[in-house]
Order: sequence, then structure tokens, then C-alpha cells
Amino acid sequence: MSIETVLHMNTGNGESSYATNSYLQEHGIQRALHVTNEAINRMCNDLGGFPGVFKIADLGCSSGPNALLGISNIISRVHDMCNENNFEVPQFQVFLNDLFENDFNIIFRSLPTFYAKLKNGEGDHCGPCFVSAVPGSFYSRLFPNKSIHLFLSSYAVHWLSRVPQGIENNKCNIYMAKTSPTNVFEAYRKQFEKDFTKFLRLRSQEIIRGGRIVFTIPGRSISDPTSEDCCIIWELLAKSLVDMVKEGRIPESDIDSFNIPYYTPYEDEVRDVIKKEGSFLIDNLYSFALDWEPYNSDNGKMDVADRPIRGKNTAKLIRAVIEPMMATHFGNSIMDMVFYKFEEHVVHHLSAREGRNFNLVISLTKH
Amino acid sequence: MSIETVLHMNTGNGESSYATNSYLQEHGIQRALHVTNEAINRMCNDLGGFPGVFKIADLGCSSGPNALLGISNIISRVHDMCNENNFEVPQFQVFLNDLFENDFNIIFRSLPTFYAKLKNGEGDHCGPCFVSAVPGSFYSRLFPNKSIHLFLSSYAVHWLSRVPQGIENNKCNIYMAKTSPTNVFEAYRKQFEKDFTKFLRLRSQEIIRGGRIVFTIPGRSISDPTSEDCCIIWELLAKSLVDMVKEGRIPESDIDSFNIPYYTPYEDEVRDVIKKEGSFLIDNLYSFALDWEPYNSDNGKMDVADRPIRGKNTAKLIRAVIEPMMATHFGNSIMDMVFYKFEEHVVHHLSAREGRNFNLVISLTKH
Repeated sequence: MSIETVLHMNTGNGESSYATNSYLQEHGIQRALHVTNEAINRMCNDLGGFPGVFKIADLGCSSGPNALLGISNIISRVHDMCNENNFEVPQFQVFLNDLFENDFNIIFRSLPTFYAKLKNGEGDHCGPCFVSAVPGSFYSRLFPNKSIHLFLSSYAVHWLSRVPQGIENNKCNIYMAKTSPTNVFEAYRKQFEKDFTKFLRLRSQEIIRGGRIVFTIPGRSISDPTSEDCCIIWELLAKSLVDMVKEGRIPESDIDSFNIPYYTPYEDEVRDVIKKEGSFLIDNLYSFALDWEPYNSDNGKMDVADRPIRGKNTAKLIRAVIEPMMATHFGNSIMDMVFYKFEEHVVHHLSAREGRNFNLVISLTKH
Repeated sequence: MSIETVLHMNTGNGESSYATNSYLQEHGIQRALHVTNEAINRMCNDLGGFPGVFKIADLGCSSGPNALLGISNIISRVHDMCNENNFEVPQFQVFLNDLFENDFNIIFRSLPTFYAKLKNGEGDHCGPCFVSAVPGSFYSRLFPNKSIHLFLSSYAVHWLSRVPQGIENNKCNIYMAKTSPTNVFEAYRKQFEKDFTKFLRLRSQEIIRGGRIVFTIPGRSISDPTSEDCCIIWELLAKSLVDMVKEGRIPESDIDSFNIPYYTPYEDEVRDVIKKEGSFLIDNLYSFALDWEPYNSDNGKMDVADRPIRGKNTAKLIRAVIEPMMATHFGNSIMDMVFYKFEEHVVHHLSAREGRNFNLVISLTKH
């Protein structure tokens, strides 16, 4: 299985699509905006204004409404700063990146509306903005040397370049879990270290000195790799697959050979890799928790009556992200049933406890 | 009808797709390569080598096998020159442009193969190449100021930004034709002048001083705007629509309100606009004729027995280019019948005479 071919969100804009089921990520992006804004402020102060052409790349933009959300915020923030400080508004060159199989057409069709809104929002002083797409893995070079001022990435850098090797003994699990053998945690951590180091090395070649990277990923709140805020959701999905085995619909070996190429690091693991790689300084590391299904729960409390609908929504959010990869491995035909079972497990889980993700936002400067 | 929404080639890679029916354009691109190569030679001589990052944009790249054909040639030519002159091979940043509705996904999925071939062809000395897409009309700004070294465009600049105004009296025609009233020729010429001037003005802002534009378009061999090499193919298509009117399948008014936003200029018209706009000098203006269906006819002669198959192929070539626009106006359901009739007219035409397009390749330098 080549990760690059199957790692993409559910395409289109139908009921199961990522475009329709990405408001958890949207919520996360909103919560991370202030870190990006701070990075822009500092970069502007360091450079004494903005370059004539401000070059921004969004790595792992996916498709759907979130693809241009972070970019819109940056443009708006830069305009505000230029107004406040009487700077000339730069031209913006925006590069949206995702893998070759990502649905870029759907983003491009939304661009006329994006450009019109930009003009409406910023008025006649709107600096021209040129949006392009750069397909490819961010574990390879994507841009010429020293050509980007600001890298942005939301919910992408936690995807590994491959499934860690030697974890065939992760029986009846699909990610790190309470029942995983020790070598599984070690293999996942090592793969993350390797991939994240490569990610930083490549970006350090593409970014200008003084440039910024701001990225948001799901992580975990404690050092223990089986921390509930990062693993339980996949344990519930694995449980649904085990149900399928019990019903004789799939062989157990199919679960054993499936592991998600994904890592939810603890804060210190991220710091360690950045320090060791050496090209970047950490300006900010901010963390926050998010309900699995963040709508109507801004107070963090859940109404018992809401559980079924919230379980359903959570199952849809996860399905939109993981279905292409699972369908390739387990077959398309069982997807509806797996995610129906998954929904039941999520609802049951929510009846006893809260479901929360933990998120990390990291802001780096190239020195 | 917004041209930007309906002006795109037939998508996908099925039987009627542009990807499958674009070998006339491929042939034209091959014939124009030497002009591009000469432009690269001269630019390299002027600049004393290549810039560290060589930025190339292909305007109106469409999708299918032709999308990267011109780009491949440029990269290969630059490598050869670097080898011959012991220059350092530059990094390549390639921008593929077409309208928002173009099928970019299909190009992106071919990129892993493109990159692999590049590496195979050029070996270890292959400069990194970064391909991106920039959707939008080339009648608007697409790139930051002075950011492109070489613009390439194959079979795109002849598309107008809109249908010329005031040509409702172009009865039973869909383009300039022998039976068109004088004002139709005038309106088409004026629209071309306006659009082509704008095209040059915009590019002159985006290109570096000394940068090059090389573009290929269908044109006509003589000043007369009803020249057979540019108009007869559309007269045959109009004839097929008139057949449909006679059979009561569409109202005549539907033909009268449809005109193709396209212009096939005479060489002098192109020269005049370039001179008047003033940003560019003409390095080369090269013209060549191509059979409508160029395969198996390199000697320019046609075997009588080939006519039916060549009529069929020509009809498919034209259908791949014009169907989205025609289907929007006349309705999807009659397309099969229209193009069946068109095929018959083309075969009949080829029984009496040869079918040939006339092509112009123009190479410009920004001064």
C-alpha cells in the first residue's frame, strides 16, 4: 500500500465527504489563529514591514471549506497591520499543497468566490493575491531554495510518510493502544522522529532566514503513549473491526496488517526533534483540548440527550478522514457497516465519559 | 453565458475527452519546439546563463498528455545547454495555468510519472523541478510582478475573453463565415485586438526584462477573414446545426445566438497589436500548415480510402474542444446527433478537397 495514493480525505462534497465533515478541524484552525497572527506580527517587526511579494504555503490543505481558511486569516491580518503601520500592502503568492490524489479541482472552483470576498473585505487597497497548488508529499522538496516566507499547516504534519515497520504484532489494534506491545510505541515514536526531522530539514531549505512555520496537529496531553485523548477514538474503531471479525465478515489478520500512519506526539517529543534538527527556534507552543464534536458544546458540558447525534457526527468526522485508506485495505463494501458499529461504540463511550482531542500549535522561526 | 465557466476542453480521459483527442495540438506543439528552443538559446546568451530558479508558466495548459509536453522540452533543452556550456543546472519552478473549471486533478495524478521520467532522462544532474497550477483567466493577472522568465502557450491565446458584441445578425453561422455580414468580421477583429492587447499588457507586468513569450495559435494564411484554412471547419459544424433546425430539433434562433469566442488572426494583425502595445519585440514569427487529422499524412497526401476514418477523427478532435460550450447552449441531449452529422459533412468535404489548419508561432522578448 503506497501511503501517497490512499492518504486523502473523502473527496467531493457529499454526505460522507471531508468538505461536509471537517468542522472539528475548522474549530481547531480557529483556535490556532492567534498563534499565526503573533508569528506574522513578529516577522513583520523583524523585517521592518512585509516583502513586496509575501509567499505563503499551506501544507496539507486538503479540500473543502478549510482549505483557504488559514490563508484568509493571514491576508486579513497582514492588511490590518499595513493599515495600522502605514506599510505598503504586499502582493500575496499562495501555494496550496497536498498529495497528488487530493481533490484540487474543488478548491479551484471556489476561488472566484474567494477572490470576490477578498476584494469585498479589503476593498480597493486589497493587494493582489495569486493562489496556486503544488501537489506532492511534504516529505519531499516542494519549493525552490529560500522561496517561502511563511509555512502554515493544519492537521497534516501528524501523518507519517509510512506505517512504522515491524508492528505486525499489534494484534486487533489499528494504532497505539492500551493492549499494544512495547515495540509498537517505540516504532511509532521512531517513525515520527524520522519523518518530522525530514519535514523540518526540507522546509529549512525552502524558507527564507527569519521565515516562520506555524502548524497545528493532534497530540497527547501526557507522556504516556496510550493517553486517552489520542488513542481511544482508534480503539473504538478497532473494536468495530473486531466485531466484523466475530461476525465472520473479515479475517482477523486483516486488522493485524492494518495500522494507521499517524502519530500524536507529546509536547516534549516535538520540542526534542526541533532542537535536534537545529534549523528552527520555537517561538510558541500552545495546546488546547477540543470536544470530538465541538458544535453546541462550547461550555464543554454535554447534554445526555445530545449523545446519539454527537456520536453520529463524530463517526462521520472520523470516516471522512480515514475511509479512503480503510476502504483500500478492507474493501469498500463493508465501510457502511464498520462505521455504523463505530457510531454505536462512540455513543456508548460518550454515555460514560467525555470525548476530547488534544491539540498542539507550534510556531517556529528559521534562524 | 460566462465564458470562463464553459470554456474548457472535454474532461476526463474517455473516448470524447480532450486527453484522448488532442494529437492535432500535440503535432502543432512538436512543430513549434524549435522556436521555443531558439528563444531559450537567446535568453541564455543575453543573461549569460540561467537564473538560479528558472520560472516558466504555461498559459492554457488544458489537461491530458499535452499539458506537460512543452515544459518537458524546455527542461530538456536547458539541461543540454548547461551540459554544453558547463553552466549550473537551475531549479525549475513550473506554473501550469488554465481556467478554474479545467481538470487539474488529472494532470496532478500524472506528475509522479513525469518526475520519474525527468530523473531517468536527465540523470543525477537533473535540477529539481517544482510543478504547480495557477487557475484563472490569462485576461487577468496571474503572477506577481516580474516573477516569470518564460511564458509558453500552445493553442490558447486565440480564445477571446467573450463573444464579440453586436453580431446577432450572423445568421446560421457560429463563427466568421463566407455568408457573414461585414460587421461580424469587424467585431471579431476588434475583440481580438482588445483581448490580445490586454494579454500582452498583463504579461509585461509579470515577466522579467529580457524574458520571453512563445505562443502558438491557429491563424489564417491570408488577410481575407473567410480564408478556408480558418473558417471552413466551423461552417461545416454550423451546417450540422442547420440540419437540426430543418429536422425541427432546435430553433434557428439558437444558432443565431451562438458564436464561438475565438479568433484566427492573420500574421499582420498579430504584428500590429504587438507593435501598438509596445512592451515586446518580435524575435520570430513562424507559420506552418497542419492537416486536420495529421496522423498518417506526413506527406500531406490523403488516400481516398482513409477519408471516412479521418473525417471521424477530425469530428472527434473538434468535439473534444467545443462540446462543453455547445452543450451549455444547445443542450447535452443533441450533442451525439450534431457531431454525427458534422462527421458526415467533414467526410464529404474531404472527398473534394484537403482539410488544413494554419498555425502561427510567435516568439517575443520583453524589452
